[in-house]
Amino acid sequence: MHSIDLNADLGEGFGHWRLGDDDALLDVVTSANVACGFHAGDPATMHRICRAAVSRGVAIGAQVGYRDLAGFGRRRIDYDLDELRDDILYQMGALEGFCRVAGGRVAYLKPHGALYNTAAVDAGQASAVVAAALAYDAGLPVLCQPGSVLARLAVDAGLPVVGEGFADRGYRADGTLVPRSAAGAVIHDPAAVVARAVRMAVEGEVEAADGSVVPCRVASICVHGDTPGAVDLAAQVRAGLRAAGAEVAAFT
Amino acid sequence: MHSIDLNADLGEGFGHWRLGDDDALLDVVTSANVACGFHAGDPATMHRICRAAVSRGVAIGAQVGYRDLAGFGRRRIDYDLDELRDDILYQMGALEGFCRVAGGRVAYLKPHGALYNTAAVDAGQASAVVAAALAYDAGLPVLCQPGSVLARLAVDAGLPVVGEGFADRGYRADGTLVPRSAAGAVIHDPAAVVARAVRMAVEGEVEAADGSVVPCRVASICVHGDTPGAVDLAAQVRAGLRAAGAEVAAFT
Amino acid sequence: MHSIDLNADLGEGFGHWRLGDDDALLDVVTSANVACGFHAGDPATMHRICRAAVSRGVAIGAQVGYRDLAGFGRRRIDYDLDELRDDILYQMGALEGFCRVAGGRVAYLKPHGALYNTAAVDAGQASAVVAAALAYDAGLPVLCQPGSVLARLAVDAGLPVVGEGFADRGYRADGTLVPRSAAGAVIHDPAAVVARAVRMAVEGEVEAADGSVVPCRVASICVHGDTPGAVDLAAQVRAGLRAAGAEVAAFT
Amino acid sequence: MHSIDLNADLGEGFGHWRLGDDDALLDVVTSANVACGFHAGDPATMHRICRAAVSRGVAIGAQVGYRDLAGFGRRRIDYDLDELRDDILYQMGALEGFCRVAGGRVAYLKPHGALYNTAAVDAGQASAVVAAALAYDAGLPVLCQPGSVLARLAVDAGLPVVGEGFADRGYRADGTLVPRSAAGAVIHDPAAVVARAVRMAVEGEVEAADGSVVPCRVASICVHGDTPGAVDLAAQVRAGLRAAGAEVAAFT
Repeated sequence: MHSIDLNADLGEGFGHWRLGDDDALLDVVTSANVACGFHAGDPATMHRICRAAVSRGVAIGAQVGYRDLAGFGRRRIDYDLDELRDDILYQMGALEGFCRVAGGRVAYLKPHGALYNTAAVDAGQASAVVAAALAYDAGLPVLCQPGSVLARLAVDAGLPVVGEGFADRGYRADGTLVPRSAAGAVIHDPAAVVARAVRMAVEGEVEAADGSVVPCRVASICVHGDTPGAVDLAAQVRAGLRAAGAEVAAFT
Repeated sequence: MHSIDLNADLGEGFGHWRLGDDDALLDVVTSANVACGFHAGDPATMHRICRAAVSRGVAIGAQVGYRDLAGFGRRRIDYDLDELRDDILYQMGALEGFCRVAGGRVAYLKPHGALYNTAAVDAGQASAVVAAALAYDAGLPVLCQPGSVLARLAVDAGLPVVGEGFADRGYRADGTLVPRSAAGAVIHDPAAVVARAVRMAVEGEVEAADGSVVPCRVASICVHGDTPGAVDLAAQVRAGLRAAGAEVAAFT
Repeated sequence: MHSIDLNADLGEGFGHWRLGDDDALLDVVTSANVACGFHAGDPATMHRICRAAVSRGVAIGAQVGYRDLAGFGRRRIDYDLDELRDDILYQMGALEGFCRVAGGRVAYLKPHGALYNTAAVDAGQASAVVAAALAYDAGLPVLCQPGSVLARLAVDAGLPVVGEGFADRGYRADGTLVPRSAAGAVIHDPAAVVARAVRMAVEGEVEAADGSVVPCRVASICVHGDTPGAVDLAAQVRAGLRAAGAEVAAFT
Repeated sequence: MHSIDLNADLGEGFGHWRLGDDDALLDVVTSANVACGFHAGDPATMHRICRAAVSRGVAIGAQVGYRDLAGFGRRRIDYDLDELRDDILYQMGALEGFCRVAGGRVAYLKPHGALYNTAAVDAGQASAVVAAALAYDAGLPVLCQPGSVLARLAVDAGLPVVGEGFADRGYRADGTLVPRSAAGAVIHDPAAVVARAVRMAVEGEVEAADGSVVPCRVASICVHGDTPGAVDLAAQVRAGLRAAGAEVAAFT
């Protein structure tokens, strides 16, 4: 029987500003990537989500980002690499405090936004992510894209790597995502998204934009909650996976 | 033999801006109140200081403040109390991450600036500090002024309370400090400061501004590092305490 | 013929986070209180709103707040008064830059949130608001509550004062608002809100919670856009005022 | 008679943190690049410096930077270009407010740190700087390095461009600076710095690291105030220029 994790970004508001429906998402996902305050997220929200996740048995991951509230962590920043490592450690520790209070723990690490994208291709920033994870907990899983530079460096460092797939994103024949600026970047048809999720989970493959079938061996599928209908779609993905005989469970 | 702790605020720069001589202070104090990023302090500095403190055997405390970099945490903010508790927990967790990486731990809690002053008199904010400490670690010492509202509420909650004295500050006959705006608020003569520190540590008393002698039973004396000559004065206090037969050691 | 202004807070998102429907509100109000980046608001939004307001003939006011993004400017901060004045000047200048680019100007000043509330009762902070306005432009109108300390100090300083009323808020017999924590603080019935707006505009009075009728001579009525149905309600207020024969026009 | 401007960065502290000796520098320079709050600078400091500059007849320029207090504006950020333009406009407007209060005006624009370096080579970010200047005041001088992409685009847009030289930095034969990571990046000998400043101002040339003499036609020379001895060196440069018969005066 195939087991697959569903992860989503949570707690991405800040203070008075809210984004997405965290409570509804927590009923769908098995792993919560909790924003840690640098690109989004505030202490009260982190506290609330950690309690809610622990009470539902949802795994908690540190969704770490650049220090850039104004840019939502989506603008590449040329960090000094030691400072990047330390900014990541700071966020992990802050989240751990709330996990501890809630009776849980930081179960994995997932970079956010421009850090995710940069660490996928840039050995410097990828190494800073790896250094933070290693320093914090040499057994801490890193959730990232299979085949990325971050995945490779994390494996080299002995860290557990959990590959994730994007059921609502187009893939290229080389296994990378179709850039958001290109046609076919996002799959809008819910049935297609569900079918792609099932194929990833059960067959370990995905159909690329050119019609070829490429390997996509992932242990987690990323769903979203920040657009209208997103939580419904996530719930459909979950239901589709179970209907196809897959177990939906945290990878941790 | 009397044992007395010396504590000081460390890591109170931010990014490019430095304040005080952290390395020199670490050779003098036995407890380091490390700024946690909300009123001052940045991740790289926290990391560095935690490593330096652990290697020297200096205890690490979470110096938590309001979220107010522009005001250095010195302006009272009327927080929602749950949000204040969570802002404190966030800072404690962030510091704990660096302690963990350095092989240490957060050994105590000390509020900074306007939070320190407000929690000394305001039951609401004091209770938020207590709630944060309790949620985090029911055995976590709180470093604060004897007789303050915070001290009383922490004791009521079963938290260890460590009283601190200020050898370079004037006291009133009721045991409170002479306000900074009044004459006699700060003792400038180094010999007098040293003598007062010794009297606090050995006799448990201090001479007030009106000449009366008031009890001042403290387990820690606060020294400073952010003004010219401050580190030298701190070293003189340390030397004076040892010359008077007191052991200078962390209270933890 | 009575002339009345409708003002609302605009541009209160930050970066990725949005709040309210600025474009829809701009079609309803005659004065836009534009958030200036300290409690909310970002440069790109300020730029966009200034252009939209100028093109529609909507007056632009500087909605200045405490430096507190995390608290949305709703927590009282005990500022040094010179620093408060300068924080206000900074925000006014920043908004003026976008007004200039859009072919407009900062036409008035309105404090936000806790600054509004504090300046209504605290002579210190009120005087900082007045000092900022005076230094910037001795003829700059201040939009605030009639009878407030700010209104009084502004008048004393020779500044034009524009009184505003809240059609959807309960009033007490002394002309102040029913606190949000008390019953009757908010009027939910749209017809009642419209009727109260008309009575304020035409009769210069409002019925207080105890049934008494109190003077409410205001030149502007504040409407909201940040809750579901708020823009609709604002449009109803506008339509009701015009149906009652009032001219809806900016006070400037 | 040759006329040359001396410019320096001022007001680069933040809140409690100070950097450099602004008052001393104001007695040496003829143009003050005032930090505007995004990479450094706070409203109270901006206000104070604008008053001091106006009273001394020192020209005020907007030293605009990335929104990155933690990185002091020294880390390249991949901004959306419209947002970068608007961040620059915001800072210019904020500074203008204090100039207005002080009886002066923003007389020129100079990018700071990573924005300066990026705009020197990247047409995208350079065009955002140009767009901000044009929108604000089509006659606003831009202070930048001769030969840079920013200089070229500003000239193309019809903006006045003021070239600046660095008397304490090594040059390469192509007229660009020796990178800070390379040997010879900084000239430490005060006499050599003064001599280079004079040669730039009077002859319009500089000796490159390889011994060749390259054109360096600049209207302003940048001096520094944030390191020990920096203000003294700046004063020596000023004295040297006058001794060589040059007039030291603002370019505006």
